[in-house]
Amino acid sequence: MSADLLLPLTRIEGRQLQTSACKEAKFSYRSQLRYVRRLVVKLGSAVITREDERGIALGRLASIVEQVAECQLEGRECILVSSGAVTFGKQKLTEEYMKSLSMRETLSPDNKRENAVTLLEARAAAAIGQSGLMSLYEAMFAQYGVKVAQVLVTELDFHNEETRQNLFSTLSELISLNVVPIINTNDAVTPPTTYAYDQTPGKKKIIAIKDNDSLAAMLAAEIQADFLILMSDVDGIYTAPPSQEGAKLLWTFTSGMQDEIRFGPKSTKGTGGMNSKVTSALYAMDHDVSVVICNGNQDKAVKHILAGRKVGTFFTKEAIPQTSPVEILADNARNGCRILQSLLPEDRANAINRLADLLVNKQSEILKANSLDLYEAKQNGLAKPLLSRLSLTSAKLSSLSTGLKQIAETSHTNVGRVLRNTKLADDLYLRQITVPIGVLLVIFESRPDCLPQVASLALSSANGLLLKGGKEATNSNKILMTMVKEALDSIGAADAIELVSTREEISDLLQLEKHIDLIIPRGSSELVRSIQEQSQHIPVLGHAEGVCHVYVDKEADLQKAIKIVRDSKCDYPAACNAMETLLIHDDLLNGSFFNDICSMLKKEGVHIYSGPRLSEKLTFGPPLAKKLKHEYGALECTVELVANTKEAIEHINTYGSSHTDVIVTENSEKAKQFQRDVDSACVFHNASSRFADGYRFGLGAEVGISTSRIHARGPVGVEGLLTTKWILFGDGHAASDFAEGGGSKFVHQQLPLNES
Amino acid sequence: MSADLLLPLTRIEGRQLQTSACKEAKFSYRSQLRYVRRLVVKLGSAVITREDERGIALGRLASIVEQVAECQLEGRECILVSSGAVTFGKQKLTEEYMKSLSMRETLSPDNKRENAVTLLEARAAAAIGQSGLMSLYEAMFAQYGVKVAQVLVTELDFHNEETRQNLFSTLSELISLNVVPIINTNDAVTPPTTYAYDQTPGKKKIIAIKDNDSLAAMLAAEIQADFLILMSDVDGIYTAPPSQEGAKLLWTFTSGMQDEIRFGPKSTKGTGGMNSKVTSALYAMDHDVSVVICNGNQDKAVKHILAGRKVGTFFTKEAIPQTSPVEILADNARNGCRILQSLLPEDRANAINRLADLLVNKQSEILKANSLDLYEAKQNGLAKPLLSRLSLTSAKLSSLSTGLKQIAETSHTNVGRVLRNTKLADDLYLRQITVPIGVLLVIFESRPDCLPQVASLALSSANGLLLKGGKEATNSNKILMTMVKEALDSIGAADAIELVSTREEISDLLQLEKHIDLIIPRGSSELVRSIQEQSQHIPVLGHAEGVCHVYVDKEADLQKAIKIVRDSKCDYPAACNAMETLLIHDDLLNGSFFNDICSMLKKEGVHIYSGPRLSEKLTFGPPLAKKLKHEYGALECTVELVANTKEAIEHINTYGSSHTDVIVTENSEKAKQFQRDVDSACVFHNASSRFADGYRFGLGAEVGISTSRIHARGPVGVEGLLTTKWILFGDGHAASDFAEGGGSKFVHQQLPLNES
Repeated sequence: MSADLLLPLTRIEGRQLQTSACKEAKFSYRSQLRYVRRLVVKLGSAVITREDERGIALGRLASIVEQVAECQLEGRECILVSSGAVTFGKQKLTEEYMKSLSMRETLSPDNKRENAVTLLEARAAAAIGQSGLMSLYEAMFAQYGVKVAQVLVTELDFHNEETRQNLFSTLSELISLNVVPIINTNDAVTPPTTYAYDQTPGKKKIIAIKDNDSLAAMLAAEIQADFLILMSDVDGIYTAPPSQEGAKLLWTFTSGMQDEIRFGPKSTKGTGGMNSKVTSALYAMDHDVSVVICNGNQDKAVKHILAGRKVGTFFTKEAIPQTSPVEILADNARNGCRILQSLLPEDRANAINRLADLLVNKQSEILKANSLDLYEAKQNGLAKPLLSRLSLTSAKLSSLSTGLKQIAETSHTNVGRVLRNTKLADDLYLRQITVPIGVLLVIFESRPDCLPQVASLALSSANGLLLKGGKEATNSNKILMTMVKEALDSIGAADAIELVSTREEISDLLQLEKHIDLIIPRGSSELVRSIQEQSQHIPVLGHAEGVCHVYVDKEADLQKAIKIVRDSKCDYPAACNAMETLLIHDDLLNGSFFNDICSMLKKEGVHIYSGPRLSEKLTFGPPLAKKLKHEYGALECTVELVANTKEAIEHINTYGSSHTDVIVTENSEKAKQFQRDVDSACVFHNASSRFADGYRFGLGAEVGISTSRIHARGPVGVEGLLTTKWILFGDGHAASDFAEGGGSKFVHQQLPLNES
Repeated sequence: MSADLLLPLTRIEGRQLQTSACKEAKFSYRSQLRYVRRLVVKLGSAVITREDERGIALGRLASIVEQVAECQLEGRECILVSSGAVTFGKQKLTEEYMKSLSMRETLSPDNKRENAVTLLEARAAAAIGQSGLMSLYEAMFAQYGVKVAQVLVTELDFHNEETRQNLFSTLSELISLNVVPIINTNDAVTPPTTYAYDQTPGKKKIIAIKDNDSLAAMLAAEIQADFLILMSDVDGIYTAPPSQEGAKLLWTFTSGMQDEIRFGPKSTKGTGGMNSKVTSALYAMDHDVSVVICNGNQDKAVKHILAGRKVGTFFTKEAIPQTSPVEILADNARNGCRILQSLLPEDRANAINRLADLLVNKQSEILKANSLDLYEAKQNGLAKPLLSRLSLTSAKLSSLSTGLKQIAETSHTNVGRVLRNTKLADDLYLRQITVPIGVLLVIFESRPDCLPQVASLALSSANGLLLKGGKEATNSNKILMTMVKEALDSIGAADAIELVSTREEISDLLQLEKHIDLIIPRGSSELVRSIQEQSQHIPVLGHAEGVCHVYVDKEADLQKAIKIVRDSKCDYPAACNAMETLLIHDDLLNGSFFNDICSMLKKEGVHIYSGPRLSEKLTFGPPLAKKLKHEYGALECTVELVANTKEAIEHINTYGSSHTDVIVTENSEKAKQFQRDVDSACVFHNASSRFADGYRFGLGAEVGISTSRIHARGPVGVEGLLTTKWILFGDGHAASDFAEGGGSKFVHQQLPLNES
């Protein structure tokens, strides 16, 4: 029983292939894409022509050829509808044109090379260009071992039954021979388009071939293609001309929507406008071909479309009742954030308490859903530690509930707290107060208990929240979310927190910089690192690595040292605050300490690697560590020697990850130097690195541990979800009053924070 | 007298072309690049072959062809040395090979298509591939109207005087005909390389052609090329094999350095290893050809190299005494930051005071350098407002000096301030203290007074600092920097603040995420926006836009409203906190207020545009505003009507830039609602938007105004340059003691901040 089959996922995504196999089964959209066998890709001239309009855009063409060739090699049947012969021909003709000029004409400023191309006749250019374009295609596809064929058509060929039959039997033959047909209108002879869309009932409907969009649509319909990709130089269909304020790209387009949309003027290159593209797309859709209109400039558009990524506008036949796209969820969350702010702190606290109660009162429902997830996870062979993270128990829920009640308490002081209260001048008072950041995106893996906890933190700090959970916890997250919604409903802020479909690609979410203010990944360091690397414009709170050190100084109390090292490494080796490297003062190598600590580590099952200096000193030492900056995350560690505190500090600043580092010494001066000069979020003296934790620090629930240097550093409590706002109260004050000779003067008097 | 000629800039950059014209003149490196006439580009097989090694990497080839063609069209003389025939041939031969197999062989698992290519003989593959590769080149270059020629050579051709002569006269002829020669070793007949480097004195030195690197180097030397670009699949020369911990890319390489470097094994594709590349590069350099070794995968490598960007490793003949590359400056600054932290606050304050005194005592020197900049700026036709920003006066310097002394005062409490003091358990105390962020990069335009101010802020907060000033203020910045250095020297922290050469590209600086922790751009909103867009992994403090609103409610005191609107719009219209949109309550349209305020604005010279709602209401109104989200930055503004406070809030949250927004009303409930729901950094009641300013807020010197939601928001004082660190003091505590049954319990008692 796979999750894919449990839920009518096509309904969730609002996307549905027209292919009949897909229409009946309830596959997810991404699964449906496996059924795309016959694919028509249309390259508009805006895609194929360079920006300077003086030749083929070779790089773009190469990328598209690569993608189409790969499709073909995967076993799909590709057909290319390509513009470009005119462009190619103009480039070739320019020179001949220049040669045909007399000396006087050549010298005339009107006859610049730049102007020449515009003077050439398109049909002649097409004739001279077609052969060159085809040989370019042939050479390019040959690099993938793919053969191509040239097919030129005119509109008449579609109207004459014999030519039509011939055309499609040729195409079928080529496709069956695993050849990619490259189709173009026969521009050298194309007659003016006079045939209109014949509406006579019963008569086979065809559309006029006004451009390659309609040609591609008609072909796709005739050869019963599964999918048609129309590439031009715009990203898809917008609600209004894209240059206009507030125009939004539509991810899906259903028939009937064209009446609501005003289209802008057509692209400067090529012959098809947006309107014609939509007409063509709808025509193809009516003939059971799925269509995407997208930008050919976009990197790997074909590949991404066939992987189910959100690229361009997807045409669906009926308006399927769909959950909102994530942008709308985010807008709702922002709105919800405003509602939460306008409530009394008691209201927010009450909602959290209500959620806390629901977790206990409805635990049987939760555990039932969770057991479904566990069953599937076991079927899928999920590793044991992951299973234990996924699993909820009655005890877990009750301690979770207690934690939530503590978070509820903090709601009273989180938002609107005065941080600075200044009298600027008579009747001019300034206050800096805490406010929520806005909309958070929390991405979490496995642990479904994360969901109510993060939701409560957002509620407490009045932030909007998008939650993106792991697929393995789908059922648990779903049921927990209904409880969050019930709690939110009770204070009229149902939209403030939303669960994003597991089908949304994380990389798509990271693009929503206008909708999301802060991302908090909670999961493996791979997850965090990948999100930090991918997110270019939304800040990410977290740490990708925890390479923590313990330095045992020669003046250390050696019993304390052994205790601290054992706790730091062995208490929970997978934690980010576990020790990865043990630094030992040179002088301790020859006493009993070195043996004692190594024996202790060995007894605990820790594999030891040596750093280069230790390795040099020992004749038979542990194997050399491959890297000094390395997070083992297991019962393994590197041991290295340093000559003094300064060297220890330098080692840590060079190879550490600025997370948590410890000195063990009885010399308080050395401890002071270490705590000052080690450049990490947490620097401890005579205490285990494992104390680096929001709960242990007394911050209440932990939002995460940050190794970033701005906003929040180290263990982050709910404060990390807040920012500030400056509120000024005046009585008609103007800044110019305070300029030289303006008569007013600033007093800048700091007032007690509670004085209003 | 241009700044380029005043300074021996080549010395500053440590890069020098070998071309004799450049060697004598003291042009900057970037100016020298204009003298690159003859250019040899060598494409290694790792560049030209796809990752799957089964064909040509068409996209990469297209991009290189584009760049080379553009060079040629600009009037340079390009020669391409290209691998790839074998790759091309293998692709072509695979099919023939498959056909030559018997049915049994075909079905054998050893004869997969994937394996076929490895079985083919390279010389045969080269023979069959050469013609296809050339026709691909021809088709691609034809798209730019550039003709190519094929020249195949063997090593023997270089040893035989007659063939050598013929070869070079052919090349000269082709070059003079504006044709790009494409050169390859004649792999179909190439004999084994037996000729060694003949060291006989007096005998013409040639190197053995073991690969295309040495072929390219020898050709470049023989045809007296100015520049040779060797492209492979590594970024350049590293101090150690790139995979090794701590290996660094060298930006420049001087003869003799090869002995200090260990090279890793050669690339998996192609025949030349790194060692052979270096030998070839040094050979070319010895023959007065400048050389760059770079990665052919890098986007637009040729273009960027010829624009003077830091791409790959540049080979220079002598070890020119060079100032350090910016990475080293940044490392020094980080070190300096640590030194500053270890000093007493008094020391930092003293250094700032010393700088403040120098500004006054040495003002004649400063003004002299400034007048040089002004002179040049006038020659270059700099606009008047920019001139006034560039200009320093005695009065400006003295008020700057006073400001610095105020910053010095704040040094005492900036760093090491305790923000949180918690007793976790017996003998276990946690403190959160302020620490500097690390290394800042401040990019500023025009205003040289920025330099001492920003330097003092960094000093006060113990941050390392890289300053990147505008070229127009070169002389002023230089002299001011000597004073900053004098002040730093007095406390032993000379390296903490560095001026980055004006020749460093900002885009290169934005890549230094390992060296720089925060970027603060100070200048036009275009500068800020461009830096925010370009910086992907270093946070940027600032605001790109200031679309500020004033909303006049129907319950406003209309006299106050007029005063506030006048100040907000007219006090300094170019400021980011000036009003751009005036929102007026519907009810005020029909009274006298609407006329009064419009007359006032007109009298002040403000051009008014109307929003869509106002425009509908008026028969003869002001012209329609093109956009509602628009920063005029001049005596222009949009006026729009709203029905109530809620609509005003919605308008601002939709079209504002979250900077500063104002409500004018006598109704305190409405003011409260507005200040709560408007989602901007500063929200004012009955006061001008112009108060949004660090000085007016009483924050001391302003670092900038931030519309970001994390770290700092609104006007940012020196606090924006600080982060925090968690210091824990224990006595051998282990976290496991606090686990269930561990015997210890957390108390989490908040202590007064000053209790130690």
